[in-house]
Amino acid sequence: MHIDDLPTPALWADVDVLQANIAEMAKRLPGNRLRPHVKAHKTTALARLQHDAGHHGFTCATTREVLGLAEVGLGADLLLANETVDVSRLSEMATSKARVTVAVDSEATIDAAAKAGIKECVIDIRVGFRCGCEVEEAAQLADRARALGISVRGVMGYEGHAMGVVDPERRRDLVETAMERLLEAHSLVGGELITGGGTGTHAINTWVNEIQAGSYVLMDTAYTEQTDQPFSQGLFLNATVVSVAEKFVVCDAGLKAQGMDHGNPSWTGGEVLFCSDEHTNLVPDKTLRVGDRVCLKPAHIDPTMSKHQVLHLVSQGEVIDQWNIDLRHW
Amino acid sequence: MHIDDLPTPALWADVDVLQANIAEMAKRLPGNRLRPHVKAHKTTALARLQHDAGHHGFTCATTREVLGLAEVGLGADLLLANETVDVSRLSEMATSKARVTVAVDSEATIDAAAKAGIKECVIDIRVGFRCGCEVEEAAQLADRARALGISVRGVMGYEGHAMGVVDPERRRDLVETAMERLLEAHSLVGGELITGGGTGTHAINTWVNEIQAGSYVLMDTAYTEQTDQPFSQGLFLNATVVSVAEKFVVCDAGLKAQGMDHGNPSWTGGEVLFCSDEHTNLVPDKTLRVGDRVCLKPAHIDPTMSKHQVLHLVSQGEVIDQWNIDLRHW
Repeated sequence: MHIDDLPTPALWADVDVLQANIAEMAKRLPGNRLRPHVKAHKTTALARLQHDAGHHGFTCATTREVLGLAEVGLGADLLLANETVDVSRLSEMATSKARVTVAVDSEATIDAAAKAGIKECVIDIRVGFRCGCEVEEAAQLADRARALGISVRGVMGYEGHAMGVVDPERRRDLVETAMERLLEAHSLVGGELITGGGTGTHAINTWVNEIQAGSYVLMDTAYTEQTDQPFSQGLFLNATVVSVAEKFVVCDAGLKAQGMDHGNPSWTGGEVLFCSDEHTNLVPDKTLRVGDRVCLKPAHIDPTMSKHQVLHLVSQGEVIDQWNIDLRHW
Repeated sequence: MHIDDLPTPALWADVDVLQANIAEMAKRLPGNRLRPHVKAHKTTALARLQHDAGHHGFTCATTREVLGLAEVGLGADLLLANETVDVSRLSEMATSKARVTVAVDSEATIDAAAKAGIKECVIDIRVGFRCGCEVEEAAQLADRARALGISVRGVMGYEGHAMGVVDPERRRDLVETAMERLLEAHSLVGGELITGGGTGTHAINTWVNEIQAGSYVLMDTAYTEQTDQPFSQGLFLNATVVSVAEKFVVCDAGLKAQGMDHGNPSWTGGEVLFCSDEHTNLVPDKTLRVGDRVCLKPAHIDPTMSKHQVLHLVSQGEVIDQWNIDLRHW
């Protein structure tokens, strides 16, 4: 089937771009140097490609992502890189077939993990504006975890504030400051893992021993401003022109079909005016008619993927497969 | 179960507010004066309450909404208030058990409807910046529809550009200008329906004979600035504090759990800093600890509802029911 025969809105990935991105990252950060973050795509079929490229551990943002990977046999080494005090969900993970490590940054999160029978953790260190404890608290929290029977595998720190910075020098400075804190915490905590980073800092962050990148597979439009990125954008949203006015056209993919927190999608065919629930208004460079197809590039892939049930796989215009986006919700 | 015992993020509606909003609207626009728009909530159980309040016709934005209402026996009079040239989806609607009327605004949309066996339409008139034909085209399009065996039930015009305007006088002026165009088109087209409007203009728009309001049931925070609104906000997102820093706390409901196109959620407990994928950072007015619950008000209900599988029904803190948000996707 040709991509233009799919009902719209249709979310699709360019398989060739996706495979090239995965191969490039596997060359840069082979094997366990990368712990792919599945929150970016929420798709076990895509995680399997990353696994087959040599990355056997995964980073997760939700319990659902952990359990979903475990269900399909990709649970060799799963890190829940978020805090939770939900003992019921922690218990589900503890009794799954996966090896599960959780991030903790407080007595309450450690106590909840222990109560649920979680066996391994990392101490999450605040290196920016996300979760994490202070460096000074790290040793005490690690002691508490060990006293409660939880192995401490090391430290985690996510430099989210550096991720989207365009200027490479400025980005590097932010990463260095953040990672000095993380290494200081590691010297107090010990363990084999120093985990952090993301697509924006994957080439800069040489302090951690594993990078948690996820967006690299399909890439956000925001990252295209970072000239040191070797990855190409591979996620697209096809829409049909359903109405034509004198000065604009309306297509049938709106803000319910894509993440809006990074702003409007981009479009090579002209100007994007605005998105409403099920529509995007466009000013085309050339005449478009009702029924014509347009291809938008969503600005932020993570929340775009989480709005769709299915991702279509496309190579040179032909739909060759479709994947369930099966790690959605909580 | 108490609301604070639900796993988070938890989307919930205040049943008392919801029922009061439905009752107030049924008093203002009884029976067929209101054609509730289900895109706001995408939930057949909620549509049934609207039906039981006397509104037997519904407005839909997607085929999925039409078919879902038909499946549960709420298909007495369904208006797809969007254009489509998807003959396959149009055929599904035409062969459903529902009475289905579709909006058309071009030869292509009429021809697709006719090919699919659709029996009734309204001519969609451009009265703002959404879909719709010019007034001058309306009669010709109506003739074409009738020639192809489609009854023309009247005209539709959505004054979306007026909906969120805070100043009532300015809003009224915008509606009047838009509706003069719609009435002019109606004089050319005929038919019993003059349909349009929404929550923001429901009390102002006296030109149409049915209003397509949907948001009134749960209300957006944006509408709270309109002092002439009698409805209260009834949709909330509960989250758990999972990390506490010196100057902020992090809770576990982020931008994947709520619509972001109207900006950050509001919160009565302090300042909202920013949302990331699964987190929102807050500066609380008083000390919060890990495990404490917070209650956010999502800025835009439509895309918030479409991100969740379940809506919890809460009365005075107790969870009394849950509804599947069963009209999601396309």
